[in-house]
Amino acid sequence: MEELMSNRMVISSSVREAGNDPIFHIAELAKKRIAEVGHEPVINSTIGSLMDDDGNLVAFDSVYSTFRNLKDTEIAAYASIAGIPEFLENVVYACFKHHKPDGYIEAVATPGGTGAVRNAIANYSEIGDEVLVQDWHWAPYGTIAQENRRKITTFELFDENGNFNFKSYENKVLELLEKQKRILTILNTPAHNPTGYNISDDEWKQLVEFYTKTANEHPDWRIIVLCDIAYIDFAGKGESARQFMEILSGMPENVLPLYAYSASKAMTMYGLRNGALLCVAPTQEIADEFKASCSFSNRGTWSNGTRSAQATLAKIISNDQLREAYEAEQADWRNTLQTRAKAFMDSAKEVGLKTCTYRDGFFISIPCENREAIRDYLADQKNFFIVALKKGLRFAPCAVNEEKCGRAPALIKAAIDKFD
Amino acid sequence: MEELMSNRMVISSSVREAGNDPIFHIAELAKKRIAEVGHEPVINSTIGSLMDDDGNLVAFDSVYSTFRNLKDTEIAAYASIAGIPEFLENVVYACFKHHKPDGYIEAVATPGGTGAVRNAIANYSEIGDEVLVQDWHWAPYGTIAQENRRKITTFELFDENGNFNFKSYENKVLELLEKQKRILTILNTPAHNPTGYNISDDEWKQLVEFYTKTANEHPDWRIIVLCDIAYIDFAGKGESARQFMEILSGMPENVLPLYAYSASKAMTMYGLRNGALLCVAPTQEIADEFKASCSFSNRGTWSNGTRSAQATLAKIISNDQLREAYEAEQADWRNTLQTRAKAFMDSAKEVGLKTCTYRDGFFISIPCENREAIRDYLADQKNFFIVALKKGLRFAPCAVNEEKCGRAPALIKAAIDKFD
Repeated sequence: MEELMSNRMVISSSVREAGNDPIFHIAELAKKRIAEVGHEPVINSTIGSLMDDDGNLVAFDSVYSTFRNLKDTEIAAYASIAGIPEFLENVVYACFKHHKPDGYIEAVATPGGTGAVRNAIANYSEIGDEVLVQDWHWAPYGTIAQENRRKITTFELFDENGNFNFKSYENKVLELLEKQKRILTILNTPAHNPTGYNISDDEWKQLVEFYTKTANEHPDWRIIVLCDIAYIDFAGKGESARQFMEILSGMPENVLPLYAYSASKAMTMYGLRNGALLCVAPTQEIADEFKASCSFSNRGTWSNGTRSAQATLAKIISNDQLREAYEAEQADWRNTLQTRAKAFMDSAKEVGLKTCTYRDGFFISIPCENREAIRDYLADQKNFFIVALKKGLRFAPCAVNEEKCGRAPALIKAAIDKFD
Repeated sequence: MEELMSNRMVISSSVREAGNDPIFHIAELAKKRIAEVGHEPVINSTIGSLMDDDGNLVAFDSVYSTFRNLKDTEIAAYASIAGIPEFLENVVYACFKHHKPDGYIEAVATPGGTGAVRNAIANYSEIGDEVLVQDWHWAPYGTIAQENRRKITTFELFDENGNFNFKSYENKVLELLEKQKRILTILNTPAHNPTGYNISDDEWKQLVEFYTKTANEHPDWRIIVLCDIAYIDFAGKGESARQFMEILSGMPENVLPLYAYSASKAMTMYGLRNGALLCVAPTQEIADEFKASCSFSNRGTWSNGTRSAQATLAKIISNDQLREAYEAEQADWRNTLQTRAKAFMDSAKEVGLKTCTYRDGFFISIPCENREAIRDYLADQKNFFIVALKKGLRFAPCAVNEEKCGRAPALIKAAIDKFD
């Protein structure tokens, strides 16, 4: 459809449909309803940020008290192109914590996880390449690929038992490698957006075997595994969710693990645009190559990052007292999130609502057919605002309190029974 | 040279030389010398930010007091993809002040001026195109073009009298239009980095005539004029430097003026990454096209901007009292800058040091041959740290106090006499 519109002043490939983001639209409807009837009767599951039980955005005290202690000049000054040195040092801990893998690790600051994904796509896939993502996936992967003249292609995340679908994944990886001689495979895990799936440590072991075997058999192929860990601090106990990082290492030199770290959710810094792309390279040379190409990308795209956000992360992580306060506050909210998600999942089981495998994270997905009709019905009739995705509905325990999480499944189930 | 290195894991076109930025290097040397001998004996002209007379970064009180009044949640929350509505409304004034041109104006928030230039290049030039910039130019234009698989090409900014070189410019514009059928021409004015040149209102009138004639003769050609106004608030009296904006309007539908606005210098917000790309479109359709393509670019590159910086600009511009305080503080520093620059230029005249035409801005350029030898000599022998560009030296009155600005020309003159 977009291809059909003719361009006036932009180049023809830049003609885009005007902003009519469906998530934004339903979120606006929810806001309007809350303004009319108050917060209490409304279930607003349209927001992708951590909200307190009354529907207010959570901003960690431990983060913003440190932020506010910065001098004006520390906020005003430019960061270095790749990120200020203190940030680059401390983001390694923020990413890996006590599960730092063996390898040559480098980091380059980016505006959030989006910037990290952008730099990975721009430097590790060729123009025209297909980048492999999960079939249930964060829609902007497609936008980032398209803006950079790549495409996304998908594999089926789940097998018939709701576990990782190795057959679909391996077939797709090999198919792309045959064609492209290189692959960038983005795995959003743990606490996958939108399903809440975690690739288990056993599944990671099997993946590492597959990467190793494939890479050894084809030394001319290049396999780049980008772990998008945007939600990792809300998975398991934070630490345990990182065990896989030590597994994903020690592979042949033509396999490169990358990590898209985001401070958006981890530090409630969404609007400060702070993240990083990290590599765990098998050689110093590959790490240096990563650093040089990603720094160049920074300079040629957004120049440098938000210095105050970088400095805040560095100060918190490098100071035992601040870090412990931050991790404690984060743990409290992780517990809240897990309590809410449990209320939803328990209730879903009770009423017989089928969901995708949920382990952790901000979102739970419900496969269904007539998603838009169900979404509109729930909004119109039930004061319940939920996001419709390509393959189902997305519920957001990150934004809905426990009581409402408990009530939601029955409403969804009834709507699905009505429309599907 | 870069082309010769072979790639390991990145794509071959992403192999870059490791960061050895020459400006960064000389700036580090200056810092080291200051640590050794103190600030007083050192002239540090390596910094591109506004510094007080003692060499400390200036951060406007009027900006940071408003910034600090934001609630934590106003800092933490995501901005909208194109920028929060209050920002988009108020950045129009920040850009045009009382010289808002006729036309359909739209704005899209970007990380600083860099992001604005990036979005203009990505959407208004084809891959492989040559983007036209001044021969004296900000080096990252080349990086941004290269990262986006475009190239830059240059025209001679100055004629033999140090005025705008119409012949060189028009020839180059026509040559590119013949070849590409479209042109993106970036004019960094007023207070051009690195020379301090302002394209005069009379010169703008002549340019508008040229664009109009060319566009009328070739309705299939597209002319996009990107004004990079990063330093505009330090030119003239701020307001008067904007008169040209009303001139650059009312042209045929195949000419589109764009503005890269940056809050970095204007609001001493360098490290907050706040700017915008604005269009002054001849039709609503062209403005809508701009908005849709640039919003898509945002989503597919850095997602959204620094909300707190956007909110701060919006609060200041929309509130008479805050805006007046901000404009007064900015005017004080503009006066300081102009006093410093005058000290340099007066002294240059006295000692017979030839500079490029300087009117306003953070930098003054001195054409010379053996720039690197002169730079190193001044650093080694004279405690004087200055940036070597492709065509000469760059002195920075933005960062050097009046007394040192007065002393600098004699030192440069003596060094040039020695080496050139």
